[in-house]
Amino acid sequence: MSSIKDELPPVRIGLLGLGTVGGGVVNVLKRNVLDLSRRAGRSIEVIHASARRLDAVRICPLDGILLTTNPMDVVENPDVDVIVEVMGGMQPASSLIRRALALGKPVITANKALIAHEGNELFALAQNNGTVVAFEAAVAGGIPIIKAIREGLAGNRIEWLAGIINGTSNFILTAMRDEGRSFADVLAQAQALGYAEADPTFDVEGIDAAHKLTILAAIAFGMPLKFDAVYTEGISQLQTEDVRYARELGYQIKHLGIARRFENGVELRVHPTLIPERRILANVDGVKNAVLVWGDAVGPTLYYGAGAGAEPTASAIVADLVDVVRTRTADPTHRVPHLAVLPDQITDLPILPMSEVETGYYLRLTVRDQPGVLANIARILADHGVNIEAMIQKEASIETAHLPIVLLTHPLQEARMNAAITAIETLDTVQAPVVRLRVESLAG
Amino acid sequence: MSSIKDELPPVRIGLLGLGTVGGGVVNVLKRNVLDLSRRAGRSIEVIHASARRLDAVRICPLDGILLTTNPMDVVENPDVDVIVEVMGGMQPASSLIRRALALGKPVITANKALIAHEGNELFALAQNNGTVVAFEAAVAGGIPIIKAIREGLAGNRIEWLAGIINGTSNFILTAMRDEGRSFADVLAQAQALGYAEADPTFDVEGIDAAHKLTILAAIAFGMPLKFDAVYTEGISQLQTEDVRYARELGYQIKHLGIARRFENGVELRVHPTLIPERRILANVDGVKNAVLVWGDAVGPTLYYGAGAGAEPTASAIVADLVDVVRTRTADPTHRVPHLAVLPDQITDLPILPMSEVETGYYLRLTVRDQPGVLANIARILADHGVNIEAMIQKEASIETAHLPIVLLTHPLQEARMNAAITAIETLDTVQAPVVRLRVESLAG
Repeated sequence: MSSIKDELPPVRIGLLGLGTVGGGVVNVLKRNVLDLSRRAGRSIEVIHASARRLDAVRICPLDGILLTTNPMDVVENPDVDVIVEVMGGMQPASSLIRRALALGKPVITANKALIAHEGNELFALAQNNGTVVAFEAAVAGGIPIIKAIREGLAGNRIEWLAGIINGTSNFILTAMRDEGRSFADVLAQAQALGYAEADPTFDVEGIDAAHKLTILAAIAFGMPLKFDAVYTEGISQLQTEDVRYARELGYQIKHLGIARRFENGVELRVHPTLIPERRILANVDGVKNAVLVWGDAVGPTLYYGAGAGAEPTASAIVADLVDVVRTRTADPTHRVPHLAVLPDQITDLPILPMSEVETGYYLRLTVRDQPGVLANIARILADHGVNIEAMIQKEASIETAHLPIVLLTHPLQEARMNAAITAIETLDTVQAPVVRLRVESLAG
Repeated sequence: MSSIKDELPPVRIGLLGLGTVGGGVVNVLKRNVLDLSRRAGRSIEVIHASARRLDAVRICPLDGILLTTNPMDVVENPDVDVIVEVMGGMQPASSLIRRALALGKPVITANKALIAHEGNELFALAQNNGTVVAFEAAVAGGIPIIKAIREGLAGNRIEWLAGIINGTSNFILTAMRDEGRSFADVLAQAQALGYAEADPTFDVEGIDAAHKLTILAAIAFGMPLKFDAVYTEGISQLQTEDVRYARELGYQIKHLGIARRFENGVELRVHPTLIPERRILANVDGVKNAVLVWGDAVGPTLYYGAGAGAEPTASAIVADLVDVVRTRTADPTHRVPHLAVLPDQITDLPILPMSEVETGYYLRLTVRDQPGVLANIARILADHGVNIEAMIQKEASIETAHLPIVLLTHPLQEARMNAAITAIETLDTVQAPVVRLRVESLAG
């Protein structure tokens, strides 16, 4: 794996903004430096970064990074190949990005407001200067929804899409529903937890969602960005009793951005919406985001994940970085390597035997209904270090006097589980082979 | 939009296989020909296709397509630029693809068995001949999961993934759960519906899922394809009572492919798995597929959609086609246009006013508790053509004698709904502004 760095110099990043997201970008680039080289064909390094204050506490190490309070210095630095803009807001971000594009430098941004308002101009400027603006991080945080629509669903005519694209609003709606609390009450809690800004207007009045919907619709339908045309309604007027009545009727209230194409035009709207509780979107809770896209060939597809946060946003920014670097390093034909990393970077990892796998287990035992049966089984399990999480014991069948016992175990190694089962099956009270299924929590 | 075709000749496709999926590819390419040109920079046409029998009934029109029973003729045809292989099976698909790659032609395939078994060789062959094998359609049908992992999550170290990647098994498990029927019974029904093959071994014994897991794991971890190392267990031994007991414990049984990275190696396993019922994966039912991917930066993301079928599979194949064509037409910098279509192909679509939007409505009225109130409201709604789908009427508040009435309407135009609300608010029995929320079914 050492050949990469020897061949090509690193791509040098200039970072505009060293707040939460900027720190996330630095951390992800450092932590995954090897994996990123394997994918992109050369390493990616932040060499210059700007921040409003240099004495602020950072969430990332800063070794090897030149710091400045003047972001234009970063843009103008001739050693900087690519600009990453994570300062947010319209100005000075707009001027900085325009200057970078005029210099022919690719720009990667998480700035949804700027793209929604000025994207048409910025994209033209990039095109004219032979460079690009990448903005995966501007919509739905770490979910690769721009790529999914723009490339993954390129075979389709997109008919409509609907998304939970503001995590703050979804967090508030989830708490209003689960705890029966008022909007104002939950908003205060969300602010305390850092899920809502001190000035929550952009989130709770739907403006942030409208920015994102503007971008999604433009890509889905191949039309210009039209933020001013989006009908925008937030959740601030929503009352707890309506959340409750909706549930009684079998619905959840979600704050959705909806774009739909008709013969005579396009609908663009952001508002609280009742959706049937069985829909997957209705089950996206808390700060999570999800976008449902309907293509004429594929039908519905859904994309779910973290819509905000330092590292989820960094995930999208670094994916854009890898895309940009791949267009510069790989031959055009092999822009994306077959197996994600360059052919000479494929690593032959050992495959672990099933005996070493650790999972939880579901066991169903069929036993004779007589005293002491359960005690014998419990002792064998304890001897093998098997911990029981839950148990169901049913009444015995009248004809056979056989009793089903269902157990759920805590995670343990499969070899040990199998040894315990073998021991249990030797008991003469056990009437049939033990049914064994694996259990996964699917959490972190 | 006429400029594209004038500039560059169409990309000419040779199609190996004219069954369900092959027909879907022809249909999608024809139906979306304009949108595809806008995205790819030139049009894409099938000019030569092979089928086992030429007199078979096709699901697609065949005008302009040269037909043959000899697939090698298609591969060798010097007018064919790109090969799409949708015949399935190991041979002759393998020989045909190898020949196409030797000729330097890009190959797009839906053949998961072939990629899982021979992908390592095929990718090397492609690389050596300066061309590519694209295989988005090989895993999870129309869900762009290969692209999501290989590009969209390129910033992450992928820790693990777990997927429902065999629709037949998921259909059977869903029916076993919902209808309490046996595996054999549901399998017979799935075969009758066309969701299961006459020989269901590949699906119900987990082999198909193991093919797909092999591919996902290789891309997620940058390792070679290792089909033989996958632990594979299907659902054919699963008993209805275990599905029932799992539910009692708060779990669903799903047939999962799981790949997980550890310090000392990788787990690769396919087996029925209990998962907590609140997890989104637990709520993926019927023939649908979904893959949950855990990246170190982004955390969990989930991708959901149709895992099989003519047009969902065609969706993935055509997305690969657009990718391949973009590498040939666009300058490398602008391989993927900012707004998905070429800059001169952006269409300025009109945005429809909210008054023309059609949705369902949730209405909450606060009325005085007296005879005839509901009749008056119902008459106004009927006069405006508003149809009621559901209603909740609660008891009046003791202090105010105010009564909440909650209504759900069928979809109608917002202008008409607003007119009805204005009329209702003039009634002197109506004590407060009508609360109006929109309802979306999110179905097709």
